[in-house]
Amino acid sequence: MTTNRKFTLAKRPDGEPKPDDFKLVEETLPELQDGQFLVRNHYISLDPAQRGWMDDRPSYMPPIPLGDAVRASAMGRVQASKNPDFPEGQWVMGLGAIEEYSVGQSGGFTFPVDVSVAPSPTNFLSVLGAVGMTAYFGLLDDGKPQEGETVLVSGAAGAVGSLVGQIAKIKGCRTVGIAGGADKCARLVSDYGYDAAIDYRGKDVAALEAAVREAAPNGVDIIFENVGGNILDAGLNNLNEKARIIICGLISEYNSKEPVGARNIWQLIVKQATMKGFLVRDYPPRFAEGAAAMGQWVAEGKIKFDEDIDVGIENAYDAFMKLFSGSNQGKMILDVSPAD
Amino acid sequence: MTTNRKFTLAKRPDGEPKPDDFKLVEETLPELQDGQFLVRNHYISLDPAQRGWMDDRPSYMPPIPLGDAVRASAMGRVQASKNPDFPEGQWVMGLGAIEEYSVGQSGGFTFPVDVSVAPSPTNFLSVLGAVGMTAYFGLLDDGKPQEGETVLVSGAAGAVGSLVGQIAKIKGCRTVGIAGGADKCARLVSDYGYDAAIDYRGKDVAALEAAVREAAPNGVDIIFENVGGNILDAGLNNLNEKARIIICGLISEYNSKEPVGARNIWQLIVKQATMKGFLVRDYPPRFAEGAAAMGQWVAEGKIKFDEDIDVGIENAYDAFMKLFSGSNQGKMILDVSPAD
Repeated sequence: MTTNRKFTLAKRPDGEPKPDDFKLVEETLPELQDGQFLVRNHYISLDPAQRGWMDDRPSYMPPIPLGDAVRASAMGRVQASKNPDFPEGQWVMGLGAIEEYSVGQSGGFTFPVDVSVAPSPTNFLSVLGAVGMTAYFGLLDDGKPQEGETVLVSGAAGAVGSLVGQIAKIKGCRTVGIAGGADKCARLVSDYGYDAAIDYRGKDVAALEAAVREAAPNGVDIIFENVGGNILDAGLNNLNEKARIIICGLISEYNSKEPVGARNIWQLIVKQATMKGFLVRDYPPRFAEGAAAMGQWVAEGKIKFDEDIDVGIENAYDAFMKLFSGSNQGKMILDVSPAD
Repeated sequence: MTTNRKFTLAKRPDGEPKPDDFKLVEETLPELQDGQFLVRNHYISLDPAQRGWMDDRPSYMPPIPLGDAVRASAMGRVQASKNPDFPEGQWVMGLGAIEEYSVGQSGGFTFPVDVSVAPSPTNFLSVLGAVGMTAYFGLLDDGKPQEGETVLVSGAAGAVGSLVGQIAKIKGCRTVGIAGGADKCARLVSDYGYDAAIDYRGKDVAALEAAVREAAPNGVDIIFENVGGNILDAGLNNLNEKARIIICGLISEYNSKEPVGARNIWQLIVKQATMKGFLVRDYPPRFAEGAAAMGQWVAEGKIKFDEDIDVGIENAYDAFMKLFSGSNQGKMILDVSPAD
């Protein structure tokens, strides 16, 4: 008999998630049926997108049902198995939940991973996983960066943004990153090679707009947007003609009851610009291509990435909220197997 | 000696243009120099875009200088000429101004037009002009309508919108038009072949959203946006995956000091949708192609278009403001040559 602990959604957050929106629930797992396998989860990916799944509104996935463990990408090892395709000891990953154990079966979202190809299994939740593939395909497919162009990235010190800046540099672009606080801005330049960094803190939209203009004197050809609100508006007022705006995330909006959106879409007409929403969901068939490229750049020292790994499922709430305060240092991951 | 009357910009409108933002100025035109020709303007195009040119903010054209006649597309005939390429009697059109006479020269924005190919010279300011080409290339190039898709058009009874709906029908789409008032909505169906009409008046954003959902039960694949604000937000919440949104105009915003923009751009991510600003400015090299297609559809009775022609330059302000009250019935044109 295995005791599982899971981080469940107790009620739908009203704005910013509160601790009592969630409940850590203990349960005894039933015996495995034929075809099933038991996964001991090790690493859970914490992502801004999860906030959207907690709401009861139209999205690209159904809302997380109340009482269910919070949906998450997870990585673990098969601990017991009645499925020959998933033998004991096999590392697996997939769309699971914030819980210590999960029961899987063939045809589900869980698939085997050869972790020997990467320095750490956690890399499959960061640079080689959805985060890395979002940066890679979002920038290259939708942004189509050309040498000499200027790329503006918000959330630039974040898991996706830090990679976007480095890929844009590899492609010969000038990169301007926006982040919160002097420390992060210093890291943008020293760690992620940004040509210029803008600290959004204490700046209203006019000041942000002026800061972007100064950091991007030739205008902005590509915006890779992770934040939204004033930051997006400031970027929109600095576009070059035929600019491409990739809306990857709008983290400033996820906890707000009244969305701000993009007030300066008039500039889309003026500059004949394109704004496109990006979801990595359709890209798994091309993950091999993206992971190969990212893996090579990592091996060559051209891409640096950071992982911020908190420990213990009892810390799930605090770890998740770091995404919104911006206090995480790299890809936010929760290790739910500290004793193993 | 020719006396010219011109409708000049006296000061920059603060929000909605007021009569005293403009001044009708009389001037005596100087003698023609070699290479110049005198155009007797007949028809002046009145367009929402002119409102944007009155502001002193970054746009795709410089602001209209204070004291200058308001920039406009114009159509007239050469009345006197010292340029063999523009003989007396030749019809010409181009980017001119709201004035009774203009002086042109080679290499300017004015070019000759063979008016015999259309029922009326005014058609070159409507179905065969920038308005028609905006509908044609905006919908077909950026919207890429496929048979069976649903196209949502705002400002659907307007000069551009009425054409967009009919082109979309020709391409086999379901068309839903949004307009203000029962009369216009009736015309959407009876005159422009829309499958469904939505009267935006008296509806808040939730009611608009519900109305779009009812009129587009299979979701919206293309939005052709001329209005913005609540109407755009209602459309955004009804998108299908990979939807295309063409931002052609945002007339609800042009007189507002605080832009609303698009609050529901979150849906761009959810639906992996694309929002693109459209300007017809780059399309003149393809106007022959577009005008040939539109001309053929008009001749075949597949496209109906309306022109709302007011008379006399002294009525320029009232005619222009009809665009914002929505009281015009078709393409707004000012005839500045009533006596000729």
